[in-house]
Amino acid sequence: MEKQVTAEIISIGDEILIGQILNTNAQWMGNALHKIGISTSFITTIGDDAQTIFDTLKIAENRVDIILITGGLGPTKDDITKKVLAKYFDSEMIMNQEVLEHVTKLFESRGREISEINKLQALVPEKCEVLKNSLGTAPCMCFVKDNKVFVSMPGVPFEMKNIMQEEVLPKLTNFFQTPYIQHRVIQTIGMGESTLAEIIADWENELYQNDVSLAYLPSPGMVKLRLSMKHPDENHVDSTLKRLGDQLYDLVPEYIFGEGDDISIEQIVGEILTEKGINIATAESCTGGYIAHLLTSISGSSTYFKGSMIAYSNEIKIKELNVSADTLKREGAVSQEVVIQMAENIRKKYNTSIGVSCSGIAGPNGGTLEKPVGTVWIAYSDEDKTISTRLQLTKKRDLNIRLTAIAILNLVRKELTLVNY
Amino acid sequence: MEKQVTAEIISIGDEILIGQILNTNAQWMGNALHKIGISTSFITTIGDDAQTIFDTLKIAENRVDIILITGGLGPTKDDITKKVLAKYFDSEMIMNQEVLEHVTKLFESRGREISEINKLQALVPEKCEVLKNSLGTAPCMCFVKDNKVFVSMPGVPFEMKNIMQEEVLPKLTNFFQTPYIQHRVIQTIGMGESTLAEIIADWENELYQNDVSLAYLPSPGMVKLRLSMKHPDENHVDSTLKRLGDQLYDLVPEYIFGEGDDISIEQIVGEILTEKGINIATAESCTGGYIAHLLTSISGSSTYFKGSMIAYSNEIKIKELNVSADTLKREGAVSQEVVIQMAENIRKKYNTSIGVSCSGIAGPNGGTLEKPVGTVWIAYSDEDKTISTRLQLTKKRDLNIRLTAIAILNLVRKELTLVNY
Repeated sequence: MEKQVTAEIISIGDEILIGQILNTNAQWMGNALHKIGISTSFITTIGDDAQTIFDTLKIAENRVDIILITGGLGPTKDDITKKVLAKYFDSEMIMNQEVLEHVTKLFESRGREISEINKLQALVPEKCEVLKNSLGTAPCMCFVKDNKVFVSMPGVPFEMKNIMQEEVLPKLTNFFQTPYIQHRVIQTIGMGESTLAEIIADWENELYQNDVSLAYLPSPGMVKLRLSMKHPDENHVDSTLKRLGDQLYDLVPEYIFGEGDDISIEQIVGEILTEKGINIATAESCTGGYIAHLLTSISGSSTYFKGSMIAYSNEIKIKELNVSADTLKREGAVSQEVVIQMAENIRKKYNTSIGVSCSGIAGPNGGTLEKPVGTVWIAYSDEDKTISTRLQLTKKRDLNIRLTAIAILNLVRKELTLVNY
Repeated sequence: MEKQVTAEIISIGDEILIGQILNTNAQWMGNALHKIGISTSFITTIGDDAQTIFDTLKIAENRVDIILITGGLGPTKDDITKKVLAKYFDSEMIMNQEVLEHVTKLFESRGREISEINKLQALVPEKCEVLKNSLGTAPCMCFVKDNKVFVSMPGVPFEMKNIMQEEVLPKLTNFFQTPYIQHRVIQTIGMGESTLAEIIADWENELYQNDVSLAYLPSPGMVKLRLSMKHPDENHVDSTLKRLGDQLYDLVPEYIFGEGDDISIEQIVGEILTEKGINIATAESCTGGYIAHLLTSISGSSTYFKGSMIAYSNEIKIKELNVSADTLKREGAVSQEVVIQMAENIRKKYNTSIGVSCSGIAGPNGGTLEKPVGTVWIAYSDEDKTISTRLQLTKKRDLNIRLTAIAILNLVRKELTLVNY
């Protein structure tokens, strides 16, 4: 077994220590390293202080192979990290012409002239290799010492991510000859983590027997399954992940809505609607516009989303959505009859292929013995049929709104893609 | 000047290192310590490994006064942190009767019997003081050694926060006799950070001359101003913060919408509407339901929010919202005339005191030379008047949606509370 390559992430910034900002950089980097088979052993956050940075580098050098530093670069930070690195590696500062040209051009492209202070950004320790920061002015510096790699990057998230992807990750893979590692992310919806785990227990065992690891990544209403495999033989990895991943589609076909880390259910529903050339409207009560918001968060959604009515009050439900006042009186706003009328009426009124609706008690107040907080009715209507379901959710308002929207989007997905699910 | 009391936060959890979860605990704790005048010098994240925990404690002991540890407790984690602490402080494990009773009761209240494994949670190192974890089963342990304080807490966020507030923060304030520190958070909206900084420059100087520090905490469309003062004399602190904070109301009266860390503009608008006994409806195009979502995210919003129409397509604007087809053809959907009709018509149609509307190009596609991405028209209508404004926002879809909603909520706030702003 090869030796595990380890890393320490050092985040520099007083604003992280006082809790003013969340350290999302370290999360992103830890995840990126994990994906190429490098183990992050430490994440250390420190302030903009030269001695502390120096001491922290020393500790890190003694315990890991790779040290990735973000922050403390740029003229407003007095380029403190750069100065400490020059001292740490006992290196003179020299003007790097390539960086100077890059910074000058960046300023020109923004219609500004480079200032003396910004010219200083091109000063770097002689012993470093400069890695390209195509999106910003602070140079990214790489040092190698006793087979250990140190990289200093700016703390601006989009600059750091770009440098990591373009420069640092390929360099580390190459330098440490890390084994081929591949992931396959399969996204499921509508089943809790523990139920899912029970159903796929045998399959999970088979994964382990084939040296594939599995991570459950739950979020409200959904569970991402990440299969990972590390092996020198690329073909073996790719074919194993294909074969075993595909088996999941036989086990829980109706719960899988897509593959990949970044897809969302609203995006998938948008793709299905676009592909079928049909459109949708929503009639929302307890979600208060959140379903429409999710649908329209996707660029290009105007091709399949025509509009919504947020019928929060009974008056609007009756007057504008033509829900029967009798039904409302007899069954209450949170009832099967009412959501069926809402879904059917919005579809007809807005002249769309599909209408969806919901009405519920989001909480924290408004519950009764018969209809406690978290009681929600949802409905789906198309030309051929209307379907409705009762959900019993949580006591938390924001979670109930989210879970209702997810359940409705999933209902649309299932109705449009599955037969007899 | 008293010596600055320093802290290190040690977060234990493999899932943080691989980027599976964000370390929100450390942010919260750093912020909580900052507020009582304790400086967090280091935040260190490590894995669930006994030797690493031991070594990390050693390093921390040599560089700070307070060591706060989260995670690695509970039966599923094999109580690794507890075992390391027992070894670190050379302490026997004993059964703590109080903890045993508490855990037993918690299980009973959930209708379950305590298992043998859970009974082990009541085993704690003899040398620790147990702090009450009223919301969970893992015991919180406090050790004092050479005037340094070590606290180990569970990693479950709501348990940790509760223990910090109820037990740890008061204990630290008392133990280190930290000076009285007070904050006043004033929230502004509708002015960028740099413009605001220019206008309040003299006032900011006066703050510093009075030993009050100021932090700018910007978020899209808003800037929180946090005034902080540390002094032994409580009365002096309170009166200084009152006097200087109040002066801000003369400088930027129309931009201040409230005080306190957690208030939101949708909450303030809800309070104003409730107080005046009036109600609102929204007619949204580019925000796609997001304004309605913000308004209804507040519990009790049904008393002032009646409903919305999301008129995403021109067909719905014409047929359902009675926008003139001629105007749409002549001016385009993103125009002053259209948002005015939308705001006025939704108010009349839904029979509310106020109607608001927006139409814009959220992007990233759909821009033209005359109306580039980020062009948005918003309008406000009440019985007496209709007001409309053109916004020129960014290239980012999600940011444009957010900024438009914030601008509309702020317009409502200003119309209802200010005279001749």
